[in-house]
Amino acid sequence: MADVIEFWFDFGSPYGYFGALEIETLAVKHKRRVLWRPYVLGAAFKTTGSQALANIPLRGDYARHDWQRSARRAGIAFTLPASFPCATIAASRAFYWLERERPDLLGRFVLAVYRDYFSEGKEIHDPASIAELAAGLGADRPSLLAAMASPAIKDRLRAVTDEALSRGIFGSPFIIVDAEPFWGADRLPMVDDWLTKGGW
Amino acid sequence: MADVIEFWFDFGSPYGYFGALEIETLAVKHKRRVLWRPYVLGAAFKTTGSQALANIPLRGDYARHDWQRSARRAGIAFTLPASFPCATIAASRAFYWLERERPDLLGRFVLAVYRDYFSEGKEIHDPASIAELAAGLGADRPSLLAAMASPAIKDRLRAVTDEALSRGIFGSPFIIVDAEPFWGADRLPMVDDWLTKGGW
Repeated sequence: MADVIEFWFDFGSPYGYFGALEIETLAVKHKRRVLWRPYVLGAAFKTTGSQALANIPLRGDYARHDWQRSARRAGIAFTLPASFPCATIAASRAFYWLERERPDLLGRFVLAVYRDYFSEGKEIHDPASIAELAAGLGADRPSLLAAMASPAIKDRLRAVTDEALSRGIFGSPFIIVDAEPFWGADRLPMVDDWLTKGGW
Repeated sequence: MADVIEFWFDFGSPYGYFGALEIETLAVKHKRRVLWRPYVLGAAFKTTGSQALANIPLRGDYARHDWQRSARRAGIAFTLPASFPCATIAASRAFYWLERERPDLLGRFVLAVYRDYFSEGKEIHDPASIAELAAGLGADRPSLLAAMASPAIKDRLRAVTDEALSRGIFGSPFIIVDAEPFWGADRLPMVDDWLTKGGW
Protein backbone atom coordinates (compact mmCIF):
# COMPACT_ATOMS: atom_id res chain seq x y z
CA MET A 1 0.00 0.00 0.00
CA ALA A 2 2.55 2.54 -1.15
CA ASP A 3 -0.09 5.24 -1.60
CA VAL A 4 -1.29 5.34 2.01
CA ILE A 5 -0.28 6.24 5.51
CA GLU A 6 -1.92 3.76 7.88
CA PHE A 7 -3.07 5.53 11.03
CA TRP A 8 -4.06 3.04 13.75
CA PHE A 9 -5.72 4.53 16.81
CA ASP A 10 -8.35 4.30 19.52
CA PHE A 11 -10.98 7.03 19.89
CA GLY A 12 -10.22 7.19 23.61
CA SER A 13 -6.54 8.05 23.18
CA PRO A 14 -5.40 11.67 23.69
CA TYR A 15 -2.19 11.02 21.74
CA GLY A 16 -4.36 9.51 18.99
CA TYR A 17 -6.27 12.79 18.94
CA PHE A 18 -3.11 14.89 18.70
CA GLY A 19 -1.76 12.69 15.92
CA ALA A 20 -5.05 12.67 14.01
CA LEU A 21 -4.97 16.45 13.84
CA GLU A 22 -1.63 16.35 12.02
CA ILE A 23 -1.72 13.22 9.90
CA GLU A 24 -3.76 14.59 6.98
CA THR A 25 -1.30 17.44 6.51
CA LEU A 26 1.56 14.98 6.49
CA ALA A 27 -0.24 12.76 3.98
CA VAL A 28 -0.92 15.66 1.62
CA LYS A 29 2.72 16.71 1.82
CA HIS A 30 3.81 13.25 0.67
CA LYS A 31 0.99 12.76 -1.84
CA ARG A 32 -0.56 9.93 0.14
CA ARG A 33 -3.96 9.37 1.66
CA VAL A 34 -4.67 8.48 5.27
CA LEU A 35 -5.96 4.96 5.84
CA TRP A 36 -7.75 5.46 9.18
CA ARG A 37 -7.75 2.33 11.30
CA PRO A 38 -9.58 2.55 14.63
CA TYR A 39 -9.16 -0.65 16.62
CA VAL A 40 -9.71 -1.96 20.14
CA LEU A 41 -6.58 -0.81 21.97
CA GLY A 42 -7.65 -2.75 25.06
CA ALA A 43 -7.13 -5.99 23.13
CA ALA A 44 -3.50 -5.00 22.49
CA PHE A 45 -3.11 -4.12 26.17
CA LYS A 46 -4.11 -7.67 27.06
CA THR A 47 -1.20 -8.91 24.94
CA THR A 48 1.37 -6.39 26.18
CA GLY A 49 0.20 -6.55 29.80
CA SER A 50 -0.61 -2.84 29.77
CA GLN A 51 -3.73 -0.85 30.59
CA ALA A 52 -5.20 2.62 30.09
CA LEU A 53 -2.34 5.08 30.70
CA ALA A 54 -4.39 7.18 33.10
CA ASN A 55 -4.72 4.21 35.46
CA ILE A 56 -1.01 3.32 35.70
CA PRO A 57 0.84 4.57 38.80
CA LEU A 58 3.39 7.32 38.01
CA ARG A 59 2.78 7.07 34.26
CA GLY A 60 -0.83 8.22 34.67
CA ASP A 61 0.21 11.41 36.46
CA TYR A 62 2.87 12.08 33.85
CA ALA A 63 0.41 11.47 31.01
CA ARG A 64 -2.19 13.87 32.43
CA HIS A 65 0.50 16.54 32.68
CA ASP A 66 1.92 15.77 29.26
CA TRP A 67 -1.45 15.82 27.46
CA GLN A 68 -2.11 19.36 28.68
CA ARG A 69 1.42 20.49 27.87
CA SER A 70 1.41 18.90 24.41
CA ALA A 71 -1.97 20.46 23.63
CA ARG A 72 -0.83 23.94 24.75
CA ARG A 73 2.31 23.63 22.64
CA ALA A 74 0.34 22.69 19.51
CA GLY A 75 -2.48 25.13 20.16
CA ILE A 76 -5.03 22.33 20.49
CA ALA A 77 -8.18 22.77 22.56
CA PHE A 78 -8.02 19.92 25.05
CA THR A 79 -9.92 19.03 28.19
CA LEU A 80 -9.77 15.64 29.80
CA PRO A 81 -13.44 14.52 29.76
CA ALA A 82 -15.21 13.65 33.00
CA SER A 83 -15.92 10.24 31.44
CA PHE A 84 -12.25 9.49 30.67
CA PRO A 85 -11.30 6.75 29.92
CA CYS A 86 -14.47 5.46 28.28
CA ALA A 87 -15.61 2.67 25.94
CA THR A 88 -15.02 3.54 22.29
CA ILE A 89 -16.39 0.46 20.56
CA ALA A 90 -19.52 2.27 19.32
CA ALA A 91 -17.44 4.93 17.57
CA SER A 92 -15.18 2.32 15.98
CA ARG A 93 -18.12 0.23 14.78
CA ALA A 94 -19.73 3.33 13.29
CA PHE A 95 -16.48 4.07 11.52
CA TYR A 96 -16.44 0.72 9.73
CA TRP A 97 -20.03 1.11 8.60
CA LEU A 98 -19.17 4.57 7.26
CA GLU A 99 -16.11 3.16 5.54
CA ARG A 100 -18.40 0.88 3.58
CA GLU A 101 -21.34 3.25 3.02
CA ARG A 102 -20.00 6.79 3.23
CA PRO A 103 -16.22 6.75 2.76
CA ASP A 104 -16.39 10.45 1.88
CA LEU A 105 -17.15 11.20 5.57
CA LEU A 106 -14.37 9.22 7.21
CA GLY A 107 -11.77 11.85 8.01
CA ARG A 108 -14.37 14.34 9.18
CA PHE A 109 -16.01 11.67 11.33
CA VAL A 110 -12.76 10.76 13.07
CA LEU A 111 -11.90 14.36 13.87
CA ALA A 112 -15.47 15.16 14.93
CA VAL A 113 -15.54 12.27 17.42
CA TYR A 114 -12.18 13.29 18.82
CA ARG A 115 -13.20 16.95 19.12
CA ASP A 116 -16.54 16.11 20.73
CA TYR A 117 -14.76 14.02 23.31
CA PHE A 118 -11.49 15.81 24.06
CA SER A 119 -12.44 19.37 23.27
CA GLU A 120 -16.17 19.56 24.07
CA GLY A 121 -16.18 16.88 26.77
CA LYS A 122 -19.25 15.20 25.24
CA GLU A 123 -20.08 11.54 25.84
CA ILE A 124 -19.03 9.27 22.98
CA HIS A 125 -19.47 5.84 24.54
CA ASP A 126 -23.09 5.21 23.50
CA PRO A 127 -24.38 4.47 19.99
CA ALA A 128 -26.97 7.28 20.21
CA SER A 129 -24.31 10.00 20.65
CA ILE A 130 -22.25 8.63 17.81
CA ALA A 131 -25.29 8.38 15.52
CA GLU A 132 -26.21 11.97 16.38
CA LEU A 133 -22.73 13.14 15.45
CA ALA A 134 -22.62 11.12 12.22
CA ALA A 135 -26.08 12.34 11.23
CA GLY A 136 -24.79 15.87 11.62
CA LEU A 137 -22.19 15.04 8.97
CA GLY A 138 -24.86 13.68 6.63
CA ALA A 139 -24.97 9.97 7.45
CA ASP A 140 -28.29 8.13 7.68
CA ARG A 141 -29.00 7.76 11.37
CA PRO A 142 -31.37 4.75 11.40
CA SER A 143 -29.09 2.74 9.11
CA LEU A 144 -26.07 3.57 11.23
CA LEU A 145 -27.80 2.68 14.49
CA ALA A 146 -28.88 -0.65 13.01
CA ALA A 147 -25.40 -1.32 11.65
CA MET A 148 -23.68 -0.66 15.00
CA ALA A 149 -25.69 -3.49 16.53
CA SER A 150 -25.21 -5.87 13.60
CA PRO A 151 -23.01 -8.98 13.75
CA ALA A 152 -21.33 -7.98 10.46
CA ILE A 153 -19.97 -4.69 11.84
CA LYS A 154 -19.01 -6.24 15.18
CA ASP A 155 -17.10 -8.92 13.29
CA ARG A 156 -15.44 -6.29 11.14
CA LEU A 157 -14.03 -4.42 14.16
CA ARG A 158 -12.92 -7.71 15.69
CA ALA A 159 -11.13 -8.69 12.47
CA VAL A 160 -9.39 -5.32 12.18
CA THR A 161 -8.23 -5.61 15.80
CA ASP A 162 -6.94 -9.13 15.14
CA GLU A 163 -5.08 -7.74 12.13
CA ALA A 164 -3.49 -5.08 14.34
CA LEU A 165 -2.18 -7.63 16.82
CA SER A 166 -0.94 -9.96 14.09
CA ARG A 167 1.01 -7.07 12.58
CA GLY A 168 2.59 -6.02 15.89
CA ILE A 169 0.46 -2.92 16.45
CA PHE A 170 -0.01 -2.16 20.15
CA GLY A 171 -0.44 1.61 20.70
CA SER A 172 -2.34 4.73 19.67
CA PRO A 173 -1.48 6.31 17.41
CA PHE A 174 0.52 3.68 15.57
CA ILE A 175 1.53 4.67 12.06
CA ILE A 176 2.68 2.41 9.26
CA VAL A 177 4.19 3.54 5.99
CA ASP A 178 5.41 0.93 3.55
CA ALA A 179 5.54 -1.72 6.30
CA GLU A 180 7.63 0.55 8.56
CA PRO A 181 6.03 0.96 12.02
CA PHE A 182 6.08 4.13 14.12
CA TRP A 183 4.55 4.31 17.60
CA GLY A 184 3.35 7.56 19.10
CA ALA A 185 2.31 11.06 18.12
CA ASP A 186 5.78 12.38 18.85
CA ARG A 187 7.15 10.13 16.13
CA LEU A 188 5.40 12.11 13.37
CA PRO A 189 8.57 14.11 12.62
CA MET A 190 10.36 10.78 12.10
CA VAL A 191 7.56 9.57 9.80
CA ASP A 192 7.96 12.79 7.82
CA ASP A 193 11.71 12.23 7.62
CA TRP A 194 11.22 8.59 6.58
CA LEU A 195 8.87 9.55 3.75
CA THR A 196 11.13 12.38 2.62
CA LYS A 197 14.24 10.21 2.47
CA GLY A 198 12.58 6.95 1.51
CA GLY A 199 13.95 5.39 4.69
CA TRP A 200 17.51 5.06 5.96
CA MET B 1 18.25 23.68 40.55
CA ALA B 2 17.88 26.21 37.77
CA ASP B 3 21.44 25.63 36.57
CA VAL B 4 21.08 21.93 35.76
CA ILE B 5 19.40 19.48 33.45
CA GLU B 6 18.61 16.34 35.45
CA PHE B 7 19.18 13.27 33.33
CA TRP B 8 17.76 10.14 34.98
CA PHE B 9 18.64 6.86 33.31
CA ASP B 10 19.59 3.20 33.62
CA PHE B 11 22.86 1.93 32.12
CA GLY B 12 20.94 -0.92 30.49
CA SER B 13 18.61 1.34 28.50
CA PRO B 14 19.26 1.86 24.76
CA TYR B 15 17.13 5.02 24.75
CA GLY B 16 19.14 6.20 27.76
CA TYR B 17 22.28 5.70 25.66
CA PHE B 18 20.86 7.67 22.73
CA GLY B 19 19.76 10.48 25.04
CA ALA B 20 23.09 10.55 26.91
CA LEU B 21 24.92 11.17 23.65
CA GLU B 22 22.90 14.36 23.08
CA ILE B 23 22.25 15.79 26.52
CA GLU B 24 25.63 17.50 27.04
CA THR B 25 25.23 19.44 23.80
CA LEU B 26 21.78 20.54 24.86
CA ALA B 27 23.08 21.60 28.28
CA VAL B 28 25.90 23.65 26.80
CA LYS B 29 23.45 25.35 24.44
CA HIS B 30 21.36 26.48 27.40
CA LYS B 31 24.29 27.24 29.71
CA ARG B 32 23.41 24.44 32.10
CA ARG B 33 25.26 21.42 33.37
CA VAL B 34 24.04 17.84 33.25
CA LEU B 35 23.15 16.31 36.59
CA TRP B 36 23.57 12.60 35.76
CA ARG B 37 21.25 10.40 37.78
CA PRO B 38 21.55 6.65 37.19
CA TYR B 39 18.93 4.75 39.17
CA VAL B 40 17.42 1.28 39.36
CA LEU B 41 14.81 1.34 36.60
CA GLY B 42 13.56 -2.08 37.68
CA ALA B 43 12.30 -0.53 40.93
CA ALA B 44 10.15 1.89 38.91
CA PHE B 45 8.90 -1.02 36.80
CA LYS B 46 7.63 -2.68 39.97
CA THR B 47 5.52 0.41 40.64
CA THR B 48 4.25 0.87 37.09
CA GLY B 49 3.75 -2.85 36.49
CA SER B 50 6.17 -2.78 33.58
CA GLN B 51 9.30 -4.78 32.76
CA ALA B 52 12.33 -4.65 30.47
CA LEU B 53 11.01 -3.53 27.07
CA ALA B 54 12.75 -6.34 25.24
CA ASN B 55 10.70 -8.90 27.16
CA ILE B 56 7.25 -7.43 26.47
CA PRO B 57 5.20 -9.08 23.69
CA LEU B 58 4.81 -6.85 20.59
CA ARG B 59 6.59 -3.93 22.26
CA GLY B 60 9.85 -5.89 22.48
CA ASP B 61 9.90 -6.55 18.74
CA TYR B 62 9.09 -2.93 18.00
CA ALA B 63 11.80 -1.72 20.38
CA ARG B 64 14.49 -3.93 18.81
CA HIS B 65 13.57 -2.54 15.40
CA ASP B 66 13.35 1.04 16.65
CA TRP B 67 16.71 0.97 18.46
CA GLN B 68 18.48 0.00 15.24
CA ARG B 69 16.53 2.53 13.20
CA SER B 70 17.07 5.35 15.70
CA ALA B 71 20.80 4.58 15.87
CA ARG B 72 21.15 4.56 12.06
CA ARG B 73 19.31 7.87 11.84
CA ALA B 74 21.59 9.53 14.39
CA GLY B 75 24.78 7.88 13.12
CA ILE B 76 25.31 6.06 16.41
CA ALA B 77 27.24 2.80 16.55
CA PHE B 78 24.80 0.38 18.14
CA THR B 79 24.70 -3.38 18.61
CA LEU B 80 22.34 -5.10 20.97
CA PRO B 81 24.72 -6.95 23.33
CA ALA B 82 24.49 -10.72 23.71
CA SER B 83 23.98 -10.11 27.44
CA PHE B 84 21.01 -7.76 26.96
CA PRO B 85 19.21 -6.98 29.21
CA CYS B 86 21.71 -7.23 32.08
CA ALA B 87 22.15 -6.05 35.67
CA THR B 88 23.47 -2.50 35.89
CA ILE B 89 23.72 -2.01 39.64
CA ALA B 90 27.53 -2.24 39.64
CA ALA B 91 27.82 0.60 37.12
CA SER B 92 25.38 2.77 39.05
CA ARG B 93 27.14 2.15 42.36
CA ALA B 94 30.47 3.01 40.76
CA PHE B 95 28.92 6.21 39.46
CA TYR B 96 27.94 7.40 42.94
CA TRP B 97 31.40 6.70 44.32
CA LEU B 98 32.88 8.68 41.43
CA GLU B 99 30.42 11.48 42.06
CA ARG B 100 31.88 11.81 45.54
CA GLU B 101 35.54 11.16 44.76
CA ARG B 102 36.13 12.05 41.12
CA PRO B 103 33.29 14.27 39.88
CA ASP B 104 35.53 15.37 37.02
CA LEU B 105 35.12 11.90 35.46
CA LEU B 106 31.33 11.57 35.60
CA GLY B 107 30.25 12.44 32.07
CA ARG B 108 33.09 10.46 30.52
CA PHE B 109 32.28 7.48 32.76
CA VAL B 110 28.61 7.44 31.76
CA LEU B 111 29.37 7.57 28.06
CA ALA B 112 32.19 5.04 28.36
CA VAL B 113 29.92 2.50 30.09
CA TYR B 114 27.22 3.02 27.49
CA ARG B 115 29.69 2.69 24.59
CA ASP B 116 31.33 -0.41 26.05
CA TYR B 117 27.93 -2.04 26.36
CA PHE B 118 25.94 -0.90 23.34
CA SER B 119 28.71 -0.27 20.86
CA GLU B 120 31.44 -2.74 21.84
CA GLY B 121 29.15 -5.41 23.29
CA LYS B 122 31.33 -5.75 26.40
CA GLU B 123 30.01 -7.09 29.68
CA ILE B 124 29.13 -4.37 32.19
CA HIS B 125 27.25 -6.34 34.83
CA ASP B 126 30.19 -7.25 37.07
CA PRO B 127 32.18 -4.91 39.33
CA ALA B 128 35.50 -6.01 37.81
CA SER B 129 34.55 -4.80 34.31
CA ILE B 130 33.31 -1.49 35.65
CA ALA B 131 36.46 -1.01 37.75
CA GLU B 132 38.61 -1.77 34.70
CA LEU B 133 36.77 0.84 32.68
CA ALA B 134 36.91 3.48 35.43
CA ALA B 135 40.61 2.80 36.00
CA GLY B 136 41.14 3.50 32.31
CA LEU B 137 39.68 6.95 32.91
CA GLY B 138 42.01 7.54 35.85
CA ALA B 139 39.99 6.34 38.86
CA ASP B 140 41.64 4.33 41.64
CA ARG B 141 40.66 0.75 41.00
CA PRO B 142 41.07 -0.77 44.50
CA SER B 143 39.15 2.07 46.13
CA LEU B 144 36.36 1.80 43.59
CA LEU B 145 36.08 -1.97 43.97
CA ALA B 146 35.88 -1.60 47.74
CA ALA B 147 33.31 1.17 47.45
CA MET B 148 31.02 -0.84 45.14
CA ALA B 149 30.68 -3.45 47.87
CA SER B 150 30.25 -0.95 50.70
CA PRO B 151 26.95 -0.37 52.52
CA ALA B 152 27.34 3.40 52.09
CA ILE B 153 27.32 3.23 48.29
CA LYS B 154 24.59 0.62 48.19
CA ASP B 155 22.48 2.87 50.42
CA ARG B 156 23.24 5.84 48.20
CA LEU B 157 21.89 4.12 45.08
CA ARG B 158 18.85 2.95 47.00
CA ALA B 159 18.18 6.49 48.23
CA VAL B 160 18.52 7.97 44.76
CA THR B 161 16.12 5.35 43.40
CA ASP B 162 13.64 6.13 46.18
CA GLU B 163 13.96 9.80 45.26
CA ALA B 164 13.17 8.95 41.63
CA LEU B 165 9.97 7.13 42.54
CA SER B 166 8.88 9.83 44.99
CA ARG B 167 9.30 12.42 42.24
CA GLY B 168 7.30 10.44 39.65
CA ILE B 169 10.28 9.27 37.58
CA PHE B 170 9.64 5.92 35.88
CA GLY B 171 11.59 5.67 32.61
CA SER B 172 14.98 6.01 30.95
CA PRO B 173 15.91 8.58 29.98
CA PHE B 174 13.75 10.83 32.12
CA ILE B 175 14.74 14.50 32.01
CA ILE B 176 13.80 17.21 34.46
CA VAL B 177 14.37 20.91 33.97
CA ASP B 178 13.07 23.33 36.58
CA ALA B 179 10.66 20.67 37.93
CA GLU B 180 9.25 19.99 34.45
CA PRO B 181 9.42 16.25 33.56
CA PHE B 182 10.12 14.82 30.10
CA TRP B 183 10.12 11.09 29.40
CA GLY B 184 12.07 9.58 26.54
CA ALA B 185 14.96 10.34 24.21
CA ASP B 186 12.57 11.54 21.52
CA ARG B 187 11.42 14.30 23.85
CA LEU B 188 14.79 16.07 23.68
CA PRO B 189 13.52 18.50 21.00
CA MET B 190 10.70 19.41 23.40
CA VAL B 191 13.19 19.93 26.24
CA ASP B 192 15.17 22.20 23.94
CA ASP B 193 12.01 24.11 23.08
CA TRP B 194 11.03 24.36 26.76
CA LEU B 195 14.42 25.79 27.72
CA THR B 196 14.42 28.21 24.79
CA LYS B 197 10.96 29.59 25.55
CA GLY B 198 11.07 29.22 29.32
CA GLY B 199 8.03 26.95 29.12
CA TRP B 200 4.58 27.52 27.66
